[in-house]
Amino acid sequence: MLKVAICGGSGYTGAELLRILAGHPFVEVAAVTSEQSAGRRVTDLFPHLVSYCDLIFEPLDREKLLAKADLFFLALPHAASQEAVDFFVSNAKKVVDLSADYRLKDAAVYEEWYKTKHNFTETLKKAVYGLPELYREEIKKASLIANPGCYPTSALLGLSPALRSGLIDADTIIIDSKSGTSGAGRKADVGFSYCEVNEGFKAYGIGVHRHTPEIEQELSAVAGKKLTINFTPHLVPMDRGIVSTMYAKLRKNEDTASVLSIYQKAYENEPFVNVLAEGRYPNAKDVRGSNYCEIGLKVNKRTNTLIVVSTIDNLVKGASGQAVHNMNLMMGFEETTALKGLALYP
Amino acid sequence: MLKVAICGGSGYTGAELLRILAGHPFVEVAAVTSEQSAGRRVTDLFPHLVSYCDLIFEPLDREKLLAKADLFFLALPHAASQEAVDFFVSNAKKVVDLSADYRLKDAAVYEEWYKTKHNFTETLKKAVYGLPELYREEIKKASLIANPGCYPTSALLGLSPALRSGLIDADTIIIDSKSGTSGAGRKADVGFSYCEVNEGFKAYGIGVHRHTPEIEQELSAVAGKKLTINFTPHLVPMDRGIVSTMYAKLRKNEDTASVLSIYQKAYENEPFVNVLAEGRYPNAKDVRGSNYCEIGLKVNKRTNTLIVVSTIDNLVKGASGQAVHNMNLMMGFEETTALKGLALYP
Amino acid sequence: MLKVAICGGSGYTGAELLRILAGHPFVEVAAVTSEQSAGRRVTDLFPHLVSYCDLIFEPLDREKLLAKADLFFLALPHAASQEAVDFFVSNAKKVVDLSADYRLKDAAVYEEWYKTKHNFTETLKKAVYGLPELYREEIKKASLIANPGCYPTSALLGLSPALRSGLIDADTIIIDSKSGTSGAGRKADVGFSYCEVNEGFKAYGIGVHRHTPEIEQELSAVAGKKLTINFTPHLVPMDRGIVSTMYAKLRKNEDTASVLSIYQKAYENEPFVNVLAEGRYPNAKDVRGSNYCEIGLKVNKRTNTLIVVSTIDNLVKGASGQAVHNMNLMMGFEETTALKGLALYP
Amino acid sequence: MLKVAICGGSGYTGAELLRILAGHPFVEVAAVTSEQSAGRRVTDLFPHLVSYCDLIFEPLDREKLLAKADLFFLALPHAASQEAVDFFVSNAKKVVDLSADYRLKDAAVYEEWYKTKHNFTETLKKAVYGLPELYREEIKKASLIANPGCYPTSALLGLSPALRSGLIDADTIIIDSKSGTSGAGRKADVGFSYCEVNEGFKAYGIGVHRHTPEIEQELSAVAGKKLTINFTPHLVPMDRGIVSTMYAKLRKNEDTASVLSIYQKAYENEPFVNVLAEGRYPNAKDVRGSNYCEIGLKVNKRTNTLIVVSTIDNLVKGASGQAVHNMNLMMGFEETTALKGLALYP
Repeated sequence: MLKVAICGGSGYTGAELLRILAGHPFVEVAAVTSEQSAGRRVTDLFPHLVSYCDLIFEPLDREKLLAKADLFFLALPHAASQEAVDFFVSNAKKVVDLSADYRLKDAAVYEEWYKTKHNFTETLKKAVYGLPELYREEIKKASLIANPGCYPTSALLGLSPALRSGLIDADTIIIDSKSGTSGAGRKADVGFSYCEVNEGFKAYGIGVHRHTPEIEQELSAVAGKKLTINFTPHLVPMDRGIVSTMYAKLRKNEDTASVLSIYQKAYENEPFVNVLAEGRYPNAKDVRGSNYCEIGLKVNKRTNTLIVVSTIDNLVKGASGQAVHNMNLMMGFEETTALKGLALYP
Repeated sequence: MLKVAICGGSGYTGAELLRILAGHPFVEVAAVTSEQSAGRRVTDLFPHLVSYCDLIFEPLDREKLLAKADLFFLALPHAASQEAVDFFVSNAKKVVDLSADYRLKDAAVYEEWYKTKHNFTETLKKAVYGLPELYREEIKKASLIANPGCYPTSALLGLSPALRSGLIDADTIIIDSKSGTSGAGRKADVGFSYCEVNEGFKAYGIGVHRHTPEIEQELSAVAGKKLTINFTPHLVPMDRGIVSTMYAKLRKNEDTASVLSIYQKAYENEPFVNVLAEGRYPNAKDVRGSNYCEIGLKVNKRTNTLIVVSTIDNLVKGASGQAVHNMNLMMGFEETTALKGLALYP
Repeated sequence: MLKVAICGGSGYTGAELLRILAGHPFVEVAAVTSEQSAGRRVTDLFPHLVSYCDLIFEPLDREKLLAKADLFFLALPHAASQEAVDFFVSNAKKVVDLSADYRLKDAAVYEEWYKTKHNFTETLKKAVYGLPELYREEIKKASLIANPGCYPTSALLGLSPALRSGLIDADTIIIDSKSGTSGAGRKADVGFSYCEVNEGFKAYGIGVHRHTPEIEQELSAVAGKKLTINFTPHLVPMDRGIVSTMYAKLRKNEDTASVLSIYQKAYENEPFVNVLAEGRYPNAKDVRGSNYCEIGLKVNKRTNTLIVVSTIDNLVKGASGQAVHNMNLMMGFEETTALKGLALYP
Repeated sequence: MLKVAICGGSGYTGAELLRILAGHPFVEVAAVTSEQSAGRRVTDLFPHLVSYCDLIFEPLDREKLLAKADLFFLALPHAASQEAVDFFVSNAKKVVDLSADYRLKDAAVYEEWYKTKHNFTETLKKAVYGLPELYREEIKKASLIANPGCYPTSALLGLSPALRSGLIDADTIIIDSKSGTSGAGRKADVGFSYCEVNEGFKAYGIGVHRHTPEIEQELSAVAGKKLTINFTPHLVPMDRGIVSTMYAKLRKNEDTASVLSIYQKAYENEPFVNVLAEGRYPNAKDVRGSNYCEIGLKVNKRTNTLIVVSTIDNLVKGASGQAVHNMNLMMGFEETTALKGLALYP
């Protein structure tokens, strides 16, 4: 049994890690931390986690935790994660970091977008970007995984095949994303109260969202050249789910069927990516609670544009499920372990 | 491997059976029927059931099905189920019937409330009411299970301990229930269209809902005397979940703690019923997608009334999860197999 | 033009007062206060209130306000309202107080349920409970209106005719109410964040909700004897609306039609109460955004119980609309002025 | 008093016309038709329309209707509207047609996208596209108004100022729109049932939605040259509201402030269009139930792209409110009559 600890367990991604790991046959959750809820039972905060009725939140005491676990999931706020990651990695522990602190390879870019200095640039070099569909082999050997952001996961899975195969003009990419409200985290904030979100829909952070450089970094790697993109996130009145609608000009005439076959080939061995048949587009509801990504696409002949739509559950494939996937790969477990649960529908 | 067939697989309870059984290590779904969708892939109708991409809906051809499976889940409409149940039972198959056709032991009561003649009263005698918390031993030996209705499940689990222990006046019971919209099934009906249900809340079928005699039959059995109850269902703008708020006059002075201890004792060995601590009441959200029932209660000293609140997921503990639970008991599998998944929250 | 001020204008009831008064031909909003938002435009906080783009929140400076307005709507928190009400009333202003501070005639009862001393018992004696259907004539002459709570409004309109006519046993009343989330006010609170409320349903404050004594006071007045009731509030995942389902034993045999005719007669001249035809029950959605109350009822012959269901919009008939209705009556305006807007459906 | 008739009154746009016209001082609804609901009271179908309790749906008997009304709102299905429009216009009545039948000036384009022949091309020539912000003067003189589609209204108001002033490259326009569910109409359809829409989000009709040629026709008129656009509609789990997020490359360097000032100038005299301050983007919730359009925008300097976000209520500014606006202009009423109601929030 692998002993794991979850640092920052009182948010939605922490709770989701607990939910998923409850079904993992080779893992024991040895500790879960929360400063605010230290001393309280997990089930006091999260009554749905009934199988953890004896687990109690503890403060993040790094030395104590070292003795308790061999792999650490860090679900701490951005910036707060930097030092903890460095500590556990330096002490020869495996780490899956769900924050953004180790995702951007260029510390200067991190500092520009997150307005925080990066103090562990040596450790940063060790981090592997944990998108298994792009970096499976590197992940297997890694000790530190920078678990991807939710929006970037949906965008990268949706655009990589087209970009890699040279179908699209990399300078014309537009990513219009829509996210359920759990993406904002579990917090007291009038703006995310029920009556403000329900029966509403809005764009936010246009052109300035912090997932922008993360998407650009990884798409640039795929394209083999530096590119900038338009990324607009929106808030949807639902709990979970991201749908990204992506546009790019085609470099030459294509039709939907031929592009679909490129996508199907790209993902034919991927356990968690489904490319839909022509004429079908994914619904966030079809992946709710699961680790699957669904992709549909269309070539608009009138405008010579490729439109790709991808959907994931932001808390699973976009966070905790992908984190467990990464752990499975790092530890040599069958990679789909504990992740085969089907979506909850309706 | 036990081979099972699902008759009537294109509704929500059929889909939910498929979802749950996908995680059952000892069961293979050998067939699923649907007249309307015969010939179509399961994943055409239900894209979320990705692991069933090769399963195809077939018409309900009873003779053909006999050869394919050893246990049958029937998720057919009321009345339509009568004959199919009789056929499979007569052919020595085990049956879990999710319709109401075999729940009411008195055919006359069935005929009064369902406005349909019961043509298989001999088979009716064999049926065991499939609420494991009340009839576990009988279920283990049964060949035909009448799987309880969703409202009755929530009401019976909530009231049985108080009634059995003689705490309450059986003539004063009021059951005020609230259900998510999936309880109405998957159908084209203006009244259940999104814009009619969303941002609304209403009572319906006051005093005439068909679950009334089912609740009365089982509460009468617990009380040891015939009783009538007030039952009012309501429609909640959410997908899943039932919350029943139940009232009854106490026969003598009690306090919340003493009644709670009776409930805790009643359910201490039950794997799927949780009695909450004093001052806590259940939220439908805490059991969404899971087979758990949560119960909270309060003694109102000012009015000498016991108020019990119970919640279940109507599609799981209120239908398909309970059906799998019953199958596990009938087949001698560990009874919680495939049912330990935690609720999806948020 | 009547000049009015709204004290406490940054919550939902304040915003709703502004929305309704925007359509009032004889009223000018001369001031609106908010400590937290002082100095900000109303439209900064509430972009939907476009016609108030020049109105700016100001601190509650009582002396200054005296000169600005002749009628004051107080939408302040409980306890905070006590002194302000006394001040404006003492200065010969008319006041409609939306807090609970002047609703309970017995200061001892107030102190027991609100855990706050009442320091203005002389002013309390002047307060008229502002339910026009019960106290229209008193309201016309009043200088201080205690605007009813949302739950009490729905319960009192639903039960008064039956109680007044002696149909029901006053000792058996159960009020099971369900409210949309705006009833909790506009605030930063994890428990009311979108992801916690959405797709959930729960009871809260069983037997201890502060609207209990208010309902009891007014029902007792109708019944002509002191009574206690069971009142259970629930939280519904919708913005607006209250549905109260009420139960009481009938004192003798009645049928639905005869009870309906008593209700229809009771409300035949009421501009804002509609009694529905036999077999129809109200939906919160049918009154959303309007000042109407809809009532449906059923006699359950099997249990000799009357079940009444009433619905209102908690922010309109349950708060700000009723406040404007009271103002209209106090000022001698046609009582439906600015309140005839139909519900927004869907 | 102007007598109006509503043909096709049992859908959401018909009901919304009735709601709005209930507050119009110069209009009397003389007739409302519905084939399916003929003979039933309006309040049987729409309990919220309490002030129409004596109005009864009648069949669409054109000759009879001629005598009853002077202006006709047609809310009939596409194609079904063609002949009725022609009839009423030929009989010297004024018509506001809410269908798409008279929106496309080129009958061949209509036939290509709607798969129906246009049989009244002479009448088609008389039709004025009823977007007051673009065609106010023509509308005042018109006898036949083709009331714009909901998506086109949001797109045209959002893009016209930029296109007219030559800021953007017309060949790069992308319109990513999101609509509440009432846009699909009031109908029995599994795909629009509560449980299918709630907690989901999806794109549909990518590249083939029938509003595409309507948007192109009007944007081409503004641009002074024929253009094609990418238009992707999405379904949002909410009742009402459209948010369109629109992208176009800037032709030269601009900043947000300078583009905003062009928009503010373009709409400074428009009663129903609000351009938001820099850094603010519209929320569908802020216009719910109102006739307002809110617009926010941003210049993304990194990609030299203009991003405009607009929102309307699809049933009001996107349908029935705009229809009343057009009637007001045609009849010489003050143009905002009955349309000044503020949005319902929350």
